[in-house]
Amino acid sequence: MGNRNLYLSNTPVEEALSTYIDALKGKIAASSETIPTIEALNRVTKSAVYAKYCSPLYNAAAMDGVMVISSHTNGASEGKPLDLVPGRDYKIIDTGDPISPPYDAVIMAEDLIELGDGKLRIIASAAPWDHVRPIGEDIVAGEMILPSNHLIRPIDIGVLLSAGILNLEVIKKPRVAIFPTGTEIIEPTEKPKEGDIIESNSRMFENMVNVKGGIAFRFPPVEDNYDKIKEKVAAASREYDLVIVNAGSSAGTEDFTVHVLRELGIVIIHGVAIKPGKPVILAIVNDKPVIGLPGYPVSAYIGFENFVSPVLSMYLDQKMIAKETGIEAIMAKRIVSSLKHKEYVHVKVGSVGEKIIAAPLARGAGAAMSLVRADGFCVIEQNSEGLEAGEKVRVELYRSLEEIRNTLVIIGSHDLMIDVIADMMPNRYKNMYISSTHVGSMGGLMALKRGEAHMAPIHLLDENTGAYNVTYIRQMFSNQVAIIRGVGRVQGFIVKKGNPLDIHKIEDLKKNRYVNRQRGAGTRILFDFMLKKAKLDSAEINGYANEMTTHMAVAALVQSESADVGLGIQSAAKAMGLDFVPVGLEEYDFAIPKEYLELECVKAFISILKSEEFKEKLTELGGYTGDHLGEIINL
Amino acid sequence: MGNRNLYLSNTPVEEALSTYIDALKGKIAASSETIPTIEALNRVTKSAVYAKYCSPLYNAAAMDGVMVISSHTNGASEGKPLDLVPGRDYKIIDTGDPISPPYDAVIMAEDLIELGDGKLRIIASAAPWDHVRPIGEDIVAGEMILPSNHLIRPIDIGVLLSAGILNLEVIKKPRVAIFPTGTEIIEPTEKPKEGDIIESNSRMFENMVNVKGGIAFRFPPVEDNYDKIKEKVAAASREYDLVIVNAGSSAGTEDFTVHVLRELGIVIIHGVAIKPGKPVILAIVNDKPVIGLPGYPVSAYIGFENFVSPVLSMYLDQKMIAKETGIEAIMAKRIVSSLKHKEYVHVKVGSVGEKIIAAPLARGAGAAMSLVRADGFCVIEQNSEGLEAGEKVRVELYRSLEEIRNTLVIIGSHDLMIDVIADMMPNRYKNMYISSTHVGSMGGLMALKRGEAHMAPIHLLDENTGAYNVTYIRQMFSNQVAIIRGVGRVQGFIVKKGNPLDIHKIEDLKKNRYVNRQRGAGTRILFDFMLKKAKLDSAEINGYANEMTTHMAVAALVQSESADVGLGIQSAAKAMGLDFVPVGLEEYDFAIPKEYLELECVKAFISILKSEEFKEKLTELGGYTGDHLGEIINL
Repeated sequence: MGNRNLYLSNTPVEEALSTYIDALKGKIAASSETIPTIEALNRVTKSAVYAKYCSPLYNAAAMDGVMVISSHTNGASEGKPLDLVPGRDYKIIDTGDPISPPYDAVIMAEDLIELGDGKLRIIASAAPWDHVRPIGEDIVAGEMILPSNHLIRPIDIGVLLSAGILNLEVIKKPRVAIFPTGTEIIEPTEKPKEGDIIESNSRMFENMVNVKGGIAFRFPPVEDNYDKIKEKVAAASREYDLVIVNAGSSAGTEDFTVHVLRELGIVIIHGVAIKPGKPVILAIVNDKPVIGLPGYPVSAYIGFENFVSPVLSMYLDQKMIAKETGIEAIMAKRIVSSLKHKEYVHVKVGSVGEKIIAAPLARGAGAAMSLVRADGFCVIEQNSEGLEAGEKVRVELYRSLEEIRNTLVIIGSHDLMIDVIADMMPNRYKNMYISSTHVGSMGGLMALKRGEAHMAPIHLLDENTGAYNVTYIRQMFSNQVAIIRGVGRVQGFIVKKGNPLDIHKIEDLKKNRYVNRQRGAGTRILFDFMLKKAKLDSAEINGYANEMTTHMAVAALVQSESADVGLGIQSAAKAMGLDFVPVGLEEYDFAIPKEYLELECVKAFISILKSEEFKEKLTELGGYTGDHLGEIINL
Repeated sequence: MGNRNLYLSNTPVEEALSTYIDALKGKIAASSETIPTIEALNRVTKSAVYAKYCSPLYNAAAMDGVMVISSHTNGASEGKPLDLVPGRDYKIIDTGDPISPPYDAVIMAEDLIELGDGKLRIIASAAPWDHVRPIGEDIVAGEMILPSNHLIRPIDIGVLLSAGILNLEVIKKPRVAIFPTGTEIIEPTEKPKEGDIIESNSRMFENMVNVKGGIAFRFPPVEDNYDKIKEKVAAASREYDLVIVNAGSSAGTEDFTVHVLRELGIVIIHGVAIKPGKPVILAIVNDKPVIGLPGYPVSAYIGFENFVSPVLSMYLDQKMIAKETGIEAIMAKRIVSSLKHKEYVHVKVGSVGEKIIAAPLARGAGAAMSLVRADGFCVIEQNSEGLEAGEKVRVELYRSLEEIRNTLVIIGSHDLMIDVIADMMPNRYKNMYISSTHVGSMGGLMALKRGEAHMAPIHLLDENTGAYNVTYIRQMFSNQVAIIRGVGRVQGFIVKKGNPLDIHKIEDLKKNRYVNRQRGAGTRILFDFMLKKAKLDSAEINGYANEMTTHMAVAALVQSESADVGLGIQSAAKAMGLDFVPVGLEEYDFAIPKEYLELECVKAFISILKSEEFKEKLTELGGYTGDHLGEIINL
């Protein structure tokens, strides 16, 4: 039978694919290009993206109403209403308008009684920062807003633009050449006669390539002629990232493809144990993958899904596109909602042990980052007053459940190094992710206690011993929880560039405007310890009640001159272009239930902590020591 | 506070949406356009699409090998091998080559022994049609290949082109104008100063509109100026299908949107009980929907999802895009698979009672329609010999589970009227679908018995009484199954145009080539009954063993001159441009377990049967009577 190759191999699918992928390794790499943000839908970030601007850009009214000087409203009550004179006592503002000194609070339009002549009556005082969105509440300049390897959605485009990102680096789309071959095939536009086959596979491939994130280049049919096929494939393998030849991949008298590919390069596999779809050719020509697919449409489709798709993914370095489906999860904390409305609550979802946990994100209407960070959302119906912690709730997912199962759930104190690890994780370990939620050190230990996190980053000072972390963990968990050593971290005063107010010690704070951290934060505990040692009362600190939940938010307030000083870490000061006055070195470690030490994602986390690349990044951030990174203390 | 509208309404979300949609009814309709098939990815068919060509276009070799005259190979065996001489006894062919008379079978290359000089030895005889794909095996000209309201995928494009469809009618994409408004907003390219807000919502909307299947037209920001906003909205409402104004939808001093919309048209809703996202405006201007969305990004996002998306769906008349996820289903029939390969089996999935049933589709590599019809697929691993009926199997879904739950599962005898009803169903009843599988009448009753179908279309003649259907149902189900009356259907001989062979009665078949239906088909039972009455033996019918599974496939073989005559229905003859010799009227009814009569989808089915539109379509098809359509017989 002359030219036939009767004997195709019968390599099992998984073996065929892994052999081919191994052979392609080093030859294929995701390359990148910079494109305008507004054209980035469905593209994948090549590197992490950091905010250029804060959002809000300035302290802004959160409601329509008037801005006032909060101290001037003290004492107003129903029994003793206070009348405000325009110009002197208030200024009308709409949502989003800037709040500038001396004004420091907003009273909502609904709480004002109009007296005529512009006079307004109030029956309650305003506290500082009431209905004000502080600068950087949603996004802080310098903050990581998207990790690398992130599939860009409409909401991401909105947030990127808000953060001043006009262009971004994304993974290049692989260019795929598609060659229909066969003397008997005709274009669909021609009138078929007996013996003709209408060429349609290439149009199916073209669309499949585009759906998967590549760019298809479909060529006109090539007749069954050895030299012509050879010429086309040789040229295409130089110009394109992937070449598909269809069909001629079997063993008929006119199946030239495999012979051509053997002459031009290496045929790795010819024949796969799959039905339909056996006669697949996996080859490499000019260091490019060339795939021969069978002509029967179902075989062609299955061959594409099994072999072309994975090779495209190598170029795209891509995680699976989110599949929006609903699951049942356990609500991690209490949510109070009004009977007045249906409420959408965005959540982070994590799989811890057997439980699927939903942790609510910031609920403000301005919190666009809550949408970016969300793994899904749940709906609290209008007739519900909310959800209790531990209650079951239906979550509509933005990510696949598989991705959630491969996610290390970190809840606790905030540090920029967590963002760095979260970015490194999926790059070093395929399909492993980190989800981090910032609730302060004590909040993190509480989350561990409730079984809602894999680990809790903490920096908790024992005022009696001066030691960090160990005391708290022993008290709360006896011996079930270990410590993964993190960093030594310099805490200090974050002050304006050049330290114009000359702040050096805690006593200097008395005459300046302070911005505090929230209760339960390690930095807050340190600050209270410092006050006690200096025999100062919290009432002596102007701004003690002004609480922010992250180091970056503290730095942002100082940067915008809404506060003079805050206690925090050096990297936050550096990111916002501020100065830093060190006051001590603290230990920032990771508390982890011992059974989780065996999880793959925890092992990956530890190996990143120990890596040289991570140490270099710490040095870049500044203000850290890293002598015990990744060491485990079994309490 | 001058110009404020403090009091937004607090209409519940569902009420707000349904009020708005009611107000828009009659104003919004999906309109259509004709586009090239190769550009139709992700578009939605406006009307059902019928094949122009058969696939295969002619009787074609299913394997590489030689074509032979089967009767010349009779008697070949290992003990008595037969040698074939080229030119006289065989011709070398490759897969897809046409098989033309006198050749009528293919012997695979693997079964041939080369003797040199072109002589080939065989050790087994070939039966007629061995390894031949008869014309129309996958697609029959005139067959419905896509219903209306179908979201077009890459595989659909391949099948459409194979069937000769170069252009098709799809639903027009709604054109959406997006106006960012606000004096304080700036384009992202400008450098922000205090009080500026970077405009980013419109870019999020733009991408959301495109993802949902519309075309977005984003305009530059409009300042907060009553007349300017009015001018823009008035013009846009004439030119575009939907207008989004963002923001100014609240009650601040500069929130002009609602006043503008009141002057230009009607404000249906201002204020919705949703959080975040309360200040939504739902209005109608120049008969077009105009939606005002709040400025906070999360509110904007939620407002879009809750109100803009459903209005876009009204234009697109669209079902939900398939969510590919896996489920566990029960395999409806036994599948034998080889240990030699991993096999992909495409399935129809239906929800019947509590069960989710997967019914395997045609497994041939050429059966592209099996991909189009599939609801999903299951994989039979290489180390498995197959699956038993009733076995649990994991199915990867192409359709959403919700869609599957709303699908009426019909298994039984084939008739073109089922395609017509399947097409009418989702058009008349939102989110209701029909899945139909053709296994013949007895096969349908067996499927009912196993609980795998909601109803079985049957036409089963009781040879003793001459009555249709009742006897069989009583025998198999005692009194649990009812009948929904279908059509009276003319059965007859399908013959060539002009009836050149002069076929009028069953005796005339003896001298001609017949094409039969498969065992268990009502038409086959009728034919066997006719043979018996005429005292003819099946051996006297040339082609009695040549079995096709549908009326259309029978007609296709006659049309391609591969057979002279077949028994079938008039509509099939008509669709293929053939002549028809009536031999009798049979009753084609639907057997249905009584408990399913209460299902919504069954009620919808019955009401379609009873509709005037359906009766008109029957008349168009020809060969039916419809005096008892939709009547129920309680056996």
